[in-house]
Amino acid sequence: MPQYTAPITDVQFLLNDWLAIDKHYQEIGAEGMDAELVNEIIAQGAKFAEEAVAPLNREGDEEGCKLVDGQVTTPKGFAEAYHEYVANGWNAMLGNPDFDGQDLPYSVAVPVHEMLNAANLSWRLTTMLTESAVLAVDKHANDELKAAYLPKLISGEWTGTMNLTEPHAGTDLALLNTKAIPQGDGSYKVTGNKIFITGGDQDWTDNIIHLVLARLPDAPAGVRGISLFLVPKFLLDENGEPGERNTLNVGSIEKKMGIKASPTCVMNYDDATGWLVGEENKGLACMFTMMNDARFQVGLQGLGAAEASYQGALAYARERLQSRAPQGIQQPESKADAIIHQPDVKKMLLVQKSLTEGCRALSMLYAQQMDVEKYTSDERHDNAKKVIAFLTPICKGFMTDMGTEVTNIGIQVYGGHGYVREWGMEQLVRDTRIAQLYEGTNGIQAADLIGRKLTRDGGDMLKATFDLLSSRVAVMKDATKQADATALLEEWEQTSTALLNAKPEDVAGAATDYLHYSAYCILGVLWLDMADAAAQSSNELVQKGKANTCAFFMKRILPRKDVHKAVVLSAADDLLALSDQEFDYV
Amino acid sequence: MPQYTAPITDVQFLLNDWLAIDKHYQEIGAEGMDAELVNEIIAQGAKFAEEAVAPLNREGDEEGCKLVDGQVTTPKGFAEAYHEYVANGWNAMLGNPDFDGQDLPYSVAVPVHEMLNAANLSWRLTTMLTESAVLAVDKHANDELKAAYLPKLISGEWTGTMNLTEPHAGTDLALLNTKAIPQGDGSYKVTGNKIFITGGDQDWTDNIIHLVLARLPDAPAGVRGISLFLVPKFLLDENGEPGERNTLNVGSIEKKMGIKASPTCVMNYDDATGWLVGEENKGLACMFTMMNDARFQVGLQGLGAAEASYQGALAYARERLQSRAPQGIQQPESKADAIIHQPDVKKMLLVQKSLTEGCRALSMLYAQQMDVEKYTSDERHDNAKKVIAFLTPICKGFMTDMGTEVTNIGIQVYGGHGYVREWGMEQLVRDTRIAQLYEGTNGIQAADLIGRKLTRDGGDMLKATFDLLSSRVAVMKDATKQADATALLEEWEQTSTALLNAKPEDVAGAATDYLHYSAYCILGVLWLDMADAAAQSSNELVQKGKANTCAFFMKRILPRKDVHKAVVLSAADDLLALSDQEFDYV
Repeated sequence: MPQYTAPITDVQFLLNDWLAIDKHYQEIGAEGMDAELVNEIIAQGAKFAEEAVAPLNREGDEEGCKLVDGQVTTPKGFAEAYHEYVANGWNAMLGNPDFDGQDLPYSVAVPVHEMLNAANLSWRLTTMLTESAVLAVDKHANDELKAAYLPKLISGEWTGTMNLTEPHAGTDLALLNTKAIPQGDGSYKVTGNKIFITGGDQDWTDNIIHLVLARLPDAPAGVRGISLFLVPKFLLDENGEPGERNTLNVGSIEKKMGIKASPTCVMNYDDATGWLVGEENKGLACMFTMMNDARFQVGLQGLGAAEASYQGALAYARERLQSRAPQGIQQPESKADAIIHQPDVKKMLLVQKSLTEGCRALSMLYAQQMDVEKYTSDERHDNAKKVIAFLTPICKGFMTDMGTEVTNIGIQVYGGHGYVREWGMEQLVRDTRIAQLYEGTNGIQAADLIGRKLTRDGGDMLKATFDLLSSRVAVMKDATKQADATALLEEWEQTSTALLNAKPEDVAGAATDYLHYSAYCILGVLWLDMADAAAQSSNELVQKGKANTCAFFMKRILPRKDVHKAVVLSAADDLLALSDQEFDYV
Repeated sequence: MPQYTAPITDVQFLLNDWLAIDKHYQEIGAEGMDAELVNEIIAQGAKFAEEAVAPLNREGDEEGCKLVDGQVTTPKGFAEAYHEYVANGWNAMLGNPDFDGQDLPYSVAVPVHEMLNAANLSWRLTTMLTESAVLAVDKHANDELKAAYLPKLISGEWTGTMNLTEPHAGTDLALLNTKAIPQGDGSYKVTGNKIFITGGDQDWTDNIIHLVLARLPDAPAGVRGISLFLVPKFLLDENGEPGERNTLNVGSIEKKMGIKASPTCVMNYDDATGWLVGEENKGLACMFTMMNDARFQVGLQGLGAAEASYQGALAYARERLQSRAPQGIQQPESKADAIIHQPDVKKMLLVQKSLTEGCRALSMLYAQQMDVEKYTSDERHDNAKKVIAFLTPICKGFMTDMGTEVTNIGIQVYGGHGYVREWGMEQLVRDTRIAQLYEGTNGIQAADLIGRKLTRDGGDMLKATFDLLSSRVAVMKDATKQADATALLEEWEQTSTALLNAKPEDVAGAATDYLHYSAYCILGVLWLDMADAAAQSSNELVQKGKANTCAFFMKRILPRKDVHKAVVLSAADDLLALSDQEFDYV
């Protein structure tokens, strides 16, 4: 497959033509931000993703990570690329300006993050987790901890990790039993085993800051007895520099399906010294502060992989000569036509394209709402917060399911060659598969959407999301598209509302179908809205490309919603009917 | 995941209760065959798959194959298991009795082959390709070649390979340019490069018999100028034993996504000595003789992987304690309930189960028709042949797409653990992914179904398949199920018939949707038919299990057909509308 090229034209269309980003920044009062600056930053981010990160992706998968004498080593070039990333300030994009962060809008950072994910997911992960750690420390730690750790986490001089999962406690954190014992001096001794710790160790920085969920000795059982601790790999000396080694170590690194160049560590904490972040027993709330962000970031991973796979498939379909097109000879000078002329191949490419660009629009709408939440403090802030809460599980669940679908199509376009590692197409499938699992499996996302986001507060978050989409549809120019979008929105809103009073087991049984149903409805609205905006574009390719891809989506992808809708509104009786033994007759 | 257990109860239900295998053997005149013997053979096959082959699967993936000094080595234990397989006669199950084959019905071999695929796909592949080579030699070679090679290929003393693909010629074999030059003594010198040759070399046997497609010097261009040659690794001496090394070698073995324990070789033929199989320039016809069989075998690979994944997911869902079930506490003695009680998890397991058992029924119906074709010579033979031709691309395409869907669900049930290699769940995804690609990509299957099988001879093969299914529905006992099945069949037949006069590009654009549409309709009929038969079963678990799983399939899987149907009947205009540049705006 060809080296990754950042989808600048599409991002610019979304920012400039679709979201009218200049007007957006003015309205929310994002001082100093304008389209020109944003486009320049994104272009630089694209360059970094293309030139510094993407070239390391294929070989990183083959080389993988190693654990030697308790120290993780990452593949060749990974540390150097990280140092360049930090030196160029990319790690600080979203950081608090009080601690040397750049405080940029999300609408700038999100496209860059998509590009990093697309270029090299393994490499990206550690920096993503650092951003999560920054959020947790910034929002919940005391001033002393902030002063000591935040500037270096924001700059990237140190990286951060999130330690939640234990072998017997994944989805159900109530079961976790890592202990933290207060030492009377403000510090705690943390003891326990954590698994699936991304970037638990690396050879990039001279310290790593672990954020660890644990229980105090007198903590209540369940999720109300969990606290969050900051546990550095090296304790800081009097100058704030890494000094004595803390009593924690990497037990092993997982052998995984993909993201092999990202060290996924088993972490052992053995009376390791740490400090409380936030209040006692409020650790889960601290984690949830950043959960929306982390889950959205994972959604972006699905999008990145989908884009990379689409590019690979498109290039191959254009150059692979095989058989003649059924509609007539296309390349008479050759013995066969490029397979892009086969309707079945064209269909595969259009599934990739329409899902990828649809999800990119969703991600940019989400980023826009993150901007609104960040810069405003009136009811716009409150509404944006509701929209973000509602869209988060959809972005995470749908965009990662989409990532797996689209990358698998990428293999299919290559035929047998897609199965061979050197082409890079199968790596995308393996790498992106994790995104459906971590930060809460997609089943958990669906449960969160239907059981919390939809049904709490009488459908308040649904309403905010519906209102946002309606406000976009209201100003569409093409009356036919506008009518289609309105009908779609109304159907979605009615179906959603019908769920508000369903029984818990029926809601649980409908969860995944509701997530997919909602995603297809929303993407349908966004596609109509994009095609409407593209009709005004001066770029004829964008204009026609969006119009034709929208038509494809409406005809061949959107009807999927009906299968999900039928299930959404029905009871879970059939799911609960099978006795345990009937599953395998023995 | 737990070690694989062969699904004996389900196979017995299908053979005894559903297909009434005793009556079937009597009707077609399969002498000496009865249910008791068949069940005993299958039980022994199950034991071999479980005990000799399955235990090698996980480690085989990690160890992989190596090429050292031109010689392939397979993982530890693989050769020993093969020798046991051969010694116990499994390789000869379907072989011609004139050359020491056992000449068993397909209804015996097919379940055993499913089990071997489920236990260890990498290990199984070389023996599957040998069976294909046996078919080619048996049907097309002259008596001398048959006498020299067939007994040892049937017993498994030697293995066989199929050499079709070249770097620039995959789907489009018209482009192949391997040359064969007659030497005047009945032999030919074969020169060329072949890729993706499964079992191109191994350390199991002292000879390997390659079947190679090549062109004679005066051959016409295109597919009418291709001939088939038998090219042994070692030329036979006067005693028929391997003597002088032939001038062919393994250039490299592919690094692949999965089936790492199966050597996929680049083969170089350099004036290698070979003999013509069948007539000059009729090589493609020779290959097509065995194409139905090979494609169906690949379909069985999807089924095997799905069954193995379902077993793994079911075991984990029963033992993994996490959170409480929404319908109420299920295991009060534990801190959490097993996740099988979560409706969303139960749904995932039921998708796995209903697709897997539905496809197994399809595979057994296919096997029954293979029996009819083999043992009868009247119109039943002709009809069975049509049914087989029609169902082959559906079995290959749908069962392998299903394999990827079901094995991915298996990962999802495990959460993050499913991504870790030691659990074995992700290996199933990687291994089965190839089945959508080889023996013709699933896009090619769809093109074959709609462009050849459906439309040729005025829908004759469709009619034979419709009649077979109708004859089963006609004798169903439950009037409601019968009416549902009849309606489904009629809808499918009408939709299919409507395609007979469509334009080539519209047909090509509808191909994959038609394949899936047909598969869901057929599986719907088979599920109703199975539930109908199970209602008479003395095994209450089978009775209720089939009834409940049928209800699930009808409600939650079958509606997928409607999405495909809508597309099937529409034109390909939207696919052809995008100009090349509109795909990426540049």
